[in-house]
Amino acid sequence: MTKHVTFKPYEITVEVPDGENLLRAALQAGVHINASCGGEGVCGKCRVLLESGDLQSSRSGLLSDEEWDLGYRQACQSFVAGDVVIRIPPESLLDRRALTRRRGGIGLRSSPIDLEALKSQGLYNPAFQKKFVELPPPSLADNACDLARLEQGLSRRHGLDNLAHDVFMLRKLARVMREDNFRVTATLDFAQRRSRKPRVVDLEPGDATQEHYALAIDIGTTTVWVQLLDLAQGKVIGHAADYNSQMSYGDDVITRIVFSQKEQGLQKLQRSVAATINQVMHRVLKQHQLPVTKISHITLAANTTMTHLFYGIDPKYIRLSPYTPAACHTPPVRARDLGLEVPDHVFIYSVSSVSSYVGGDIVSGVLASGIYKDPKLTLFIDIGTNGEIVIGNQQWLACAACSAGPAFEGGGIKFGMRATAGAIEEVSINPQTYEPMLLTIDMVKPKGICGSGLINILASMMEADIISPNGKFREDLNTPRIRVGDEGREYVLAMAPDTQSGQDITLSEADIDNLMRAKGAMFAGYVTLLENVGLKLEDLEQVILAGAFGNFINIDNAIAIGLLPDLPREDYQFVGNASLQGASLLAFSRELLEEERRVADMMTNFELSETPGFMDQYIAALFLPHTKMEYFPSVSERLKSLKG
Amino acid sequence: MTKHVTFKPYEITVEVPDGENLLRAALQAGVHINASCGGEGVCGKCRVLLESGDLQSSRSGLLSDEEWDLGYRQACQSFVAGDVVIRIPPESLLDRRALTRRRGGIGLRSSPIDLEALKSQGLYNPAFQKKFVELPPPSLADNACDLARLEQGLSRRHGLDNLAHDVFMLRKLARVMREDNFRVTATLDFAQRRSRKPRVVDLEPGDATQEHYALAIDIGTTTVWVQLLDLAQGKVIGHAADYNSQMSYGDDVITRIVFSQKEQGLQKLQRSVAATINQVMHRVLKQHQLPVTKISHITLAANTTMTHLFYGIDPKYIRLSPYTPAACHTPPVRARDLGLEVPDHVFIYSVSSVSSYVGGDIVSGVLASGIYKDPKLTLFIDIGTNGEIVIGNQQWLACAACSAGPAFEGGGIKFGMRATAGAIEEVSINPQTYEPMLLTIDMVKPKGICGSGLINILASMMEADIISPNGKFREDLNTPRIRVGDEGREYVLAMAPDTQSGQDITLSEADIDNLMRAKGAMFAGYVTLLENVGLKLEDLEQVILAGAFGNFINIDNAIAIGLLPDLPREDYQFVGNASLQGASLLAFSRELLEEERRVADMMTNFELSETPGFMDQYIAALFLPHTKMEYFPSVSERLKSLKG
Repeated sequence: MTKHVTFKPYEITVEVPDGENLLRAALQAGVHINASCGGEGVCGKCRVLLESGDLQSSRSGLLSDEEWDLGYRQACQSFVAGDVVIRIPPESLLDRRALTRRRGGIGLRSSPIDLEALKSQGLYNPAFQKKFVELPPPSLADNACDLARLEQGLSRRHGLDNLAHDVFMLRKLARVMREDNFRVTATLDFAQRRSRKPRVVDLEPGDATQEHYALAIDIGTTTVWVQLLDLAQGKVIGHAADYNSQMSYGDDVITRIVFSQKEQGLQKLQRSVAATINQVMHRVLKQHQLPVTKISHITLAANTTMTHLFYGIDPKYIRLSPYTPAACHTPPVRARDLGLEVPDHVFIYSVSSVSSYVGGDIVSGVLASGIYKDPKLTLFIDIGTNGEIVIGNQQWLACAACSAGPAFEGGGIKFGMRATAGAIEEVSINPQTYEPMLLTIDMVKPKGICGSGLINILASMMEADIISPNGKFREDLNTPRIRVGDEGREYVLAMAPDTQSGQDITLSEADIDNLMRAKGAMFAGYVTLLENVGLKLEDLEQVILAGAFGNFINIDNAIAIGLLPDLPREDYQFVGNASLQGASLLAFSRELLEEERRVADMMTNFELSETPGFMDQYIAALFLPHTKMEYFPSVSERLKSLKG
Repeated sequence: MTKHVTFKPYEITVEVPDGENLLRAALQAGVHINASCGGEGVCGKCRVLLESGDLQSSRSGLLSDEEWDLGYRQACQSFVAGDVVIRIPPESLLDRRALTRRRGGIGLRSSPIDLEALKSQGLYNPAFQKKFVELPPPSLADNACDLARLEQGLSRRHGLDNLAHDVFMLRKLARVMREDNFRVTATLDFAQRRSRKPRVVDLEPGDATQEHYALAIDIGTTTVWVQLLDLAQGKVIGHAADYNSQMSYGDDVITRIVFSQKEQGLQKLQRSVAATINQVMHRVLKQHQLPVTKISHITLAANTTMTHLFYGIDPKYIRLSPYTPAACHTPPVRARDLGLEVPDHVFIYSVSSVSSYVGGDIVSGVLASGIYKDPKLTLFIDIGTNGEIVIGNQQWLACAACSAGPAFEGGGIKFGMRATAGAIEEVSINPQTYEPMLLTIDMVKPKGICGSGLINILASMMEADIISPNGKFREDLNTPRIRVGDEGREYVLAMAPDTQSGQDITLSEADIDNLMRAKGAMFAGYVTLLENVGLKLEDLEQVILAGAFGNFINIDNAIAIGLLPDLPREDYQFVGNASLQGASLLAFSRELLEEERRVADMMTNFELSETPGFMDQYIAALFLPHTKMEYFPSVSERLKSLKG
């Protein structure tokens, strides 16, 4: 017996077995619902509205009587008992279109990989190459096997000797060689890490050297990006992204590791992310009308947990002290063995990780930004739940992860949300009336506050002088905007009638505490790293911001709250999705593909909780911008001038 | 709707879909039926007897009215239309037990691989080795990934650096390391041909170095052999065999290649032989109560066509002039990808072939017999449908395949059969009465004549002087044993009442012609090879007989009919199943595993049909023993003494 489940507002209907879990049904439908606790029912984020039909739901204390009567249910605690119509409430919606939204004007220019520079440096040399050969047809006087004939041709025409082969290539060898009268194009892999022998991975009839493509993939905890690379022309020709469908099993790496320990949990997570990759890959290939057979290989970067989950490697000990990953390096793996819908010959090469919380995404970013070969002392910083920090130059690299918490991604903040439509992003507070002026993403009714918005609000509150350096609201202000709510004192950003949910949107002192802890952890992280190598904040010559968040951040405001160091703005640089850029670099340059292990090995990992001085630095940083104002001279000056 | 099919005399019943082909039903039941024509219905060998029930059979001219009325049907032309009981007639039975039957006394001693000699030569050095290490548990001060910890341990304890890894090992790494407190045994592969880096393929908790096994496999066209090797003790501890279940698709390589070109034909043949290997492998492991997880790798030898079929490589052009295989070398392949039921980490290493008809089985035999490092000029000969010949010494090797036809395997001979129960094997003919004395395998009523029996009968007829050197019966003999049958003059070996089938068993002049062509092709083959390198028959110093057939052959008789060269009997040596022995050598010795490609490359292939002098030699050899009696001095002398 099957039942129908319709998800509104998408109007997507799926057929599921009687008794199916509603979260699973949503997964099947491709409908995203936040779910932080891996299905245990404790986070309460996956609430949905039952519009009609029969659900068997168990009820936890996370839903009030009123909500229950209105039809709110936790999707993970609900099982389909009849045809049902479900509405995903606005606060659970994740809008895929938001991912590719183009923005401008707020921040600095980004620095994508410069392929022309790569070519001029002689580094454009893809590890996979296609070689065309015309072979003499066999005769009774020369009836060597097809493979020997191919080897002789590649040796004579291209000086390639001592080749290795893929059995899947051998399976089509006889047919392909005769399809265009022994004129063939061989795809060679010069990258096999466990070997110096070039490997023949694929064979096509005729001259196919101009049809050579690869994919670069970035698996983020939230988002999966795929870039389509043209290796014959040497350029990036397309990209696509989607939410990582593992989101249904938990918002962050920790809940996913917990889920991976359940029966079949690891397999489900592995298949889930493979399904997302397949979907995004097919989309980008379709956009460019390319058959998947023209892909020679895939390069990949991801954080340590995402890499473990995609390769099906147990991540259990990543979250248990002393935080050891199973493997920071992975060998090249046949992509089909990981569930990707690509030809048999396609292998995946992935960027090495450094530790449990400094992953291949960061190493990839270090590669993309080139700091491992830059003489300048550079801070590379990726702000997120686990803010990652790399400091160093061409001679040494130190790195650490800060458990900043999910504040900058909207987590732990009552009205925090991802940067999608309705998120309050830009704020200005009138220092006389204390009334705000708000701009939301897509300029629709506000729904919550995104990470860059939180930074901007905090900086604006500092400028309007409504909060003290300790993050508390001034008590002498007479305005209805500041009041005492359920969780203590709060500032009302948007009133109920103006919001999507019909609730006031506020920022409380508790929220501000969370934000200060997050920014304090990041600041303490890089100062501690510097101190441990005998350097000071003033020695920094350059800051590189990586990650999607970096693209939207207002540098002045981030410095104002003490998140980023007070360097001249021209010493700042964005690299955008540096992880994805690094992955595509590996496909473009054999030298860089070989260098990635060296770069990962070069990065010394610090466990901040074990590093002398970190706790002191952290406590000192729980101020706006900092207890030591001399760290932030330009901020100090601006605040003074405003008060002046 | 399903139907039941019962096969007698095995009393095996299987359930099949309505309308299933009877040959397929037999395959499913594990019941062997000869079938030479790949299911086309033209050979008539797959006849079975319908005892009860409903078959839909089409009838060809191969069954007489009487046979049809008795219930004989061709299995490949029959489809199950109800529950049926089928009897496999004796002439179709292949008795598995016959394969492992021990014989003695007829021939010379065989020379199995001498492991002690290998050890004393320093060649005992398996390419796969297990290494035990005790690792320091991780701490916050040392929380490198498990893989790095393992690498450090292997480096410090065993001096192993620069290791490669298998992703399947990484999947269990975290669990296994913690199972016995970071005491682990790593299985290392030093053989990866496309690399010099040792590869960690498996990991077990605790010290498992004493539990290390491998499998050596010989895929013959007819029979699949599996040897179980103990690599910790350095010995062969078991073996098992079964008929290659591809037999149901055709008796010989040609019919199988034809079948492989049908829709899904190659896949069916691939799965078929994989199923046989799985069955034999599980049997031998069960006998020794070993779990399959203790197998580190598999080595394999097979003829060129069998290798193509097992690896799923299209063999189409092997049978079409100019006879080119797709590939004479195969890379190491994950055994699971070929359908073997072994752990993920198990790779298969197979012996290279030389040409379409000099395959990995022969190269393996050359390795096992050591002629590639012997100063003596040696003839290595494997007698079968395609008799393969290798001539040479430590400096050079020449080889060729002779299309001898299937006479020595019982094909093309009216009462020819495989060497199973009831096959006439030893014969003596009374030179006065011309009455025969017969001994059959297992001493049961005769059913036919096996290959070694045919040689013995022919030699006995020569000694009794009832045939002339041209292979014709003397016309002046007055005996009812010699008569004119349907196919011309024939000798009656066994009369109807004494035989299993109730028919006379005879050998006709047409049969003798076939035998002379077969032995003539072999003789012409090795003489032609010798002449083409400027040598003569007298230069031969040693003869090595390989193949199952070689074990049962009577050397004196084989020389008497002109099949083997007239060398002193002490210069002859048997190596039995040299292909299987060579495969196990590869597992025991990394040096030999690396040498096999060199040996294959060292073997110069001659296409006899294109080689000057072959046809003349062939025609000259169509005599008993030969037109030039000086080639066979000892035979000449013995015949003279008998007549004298």
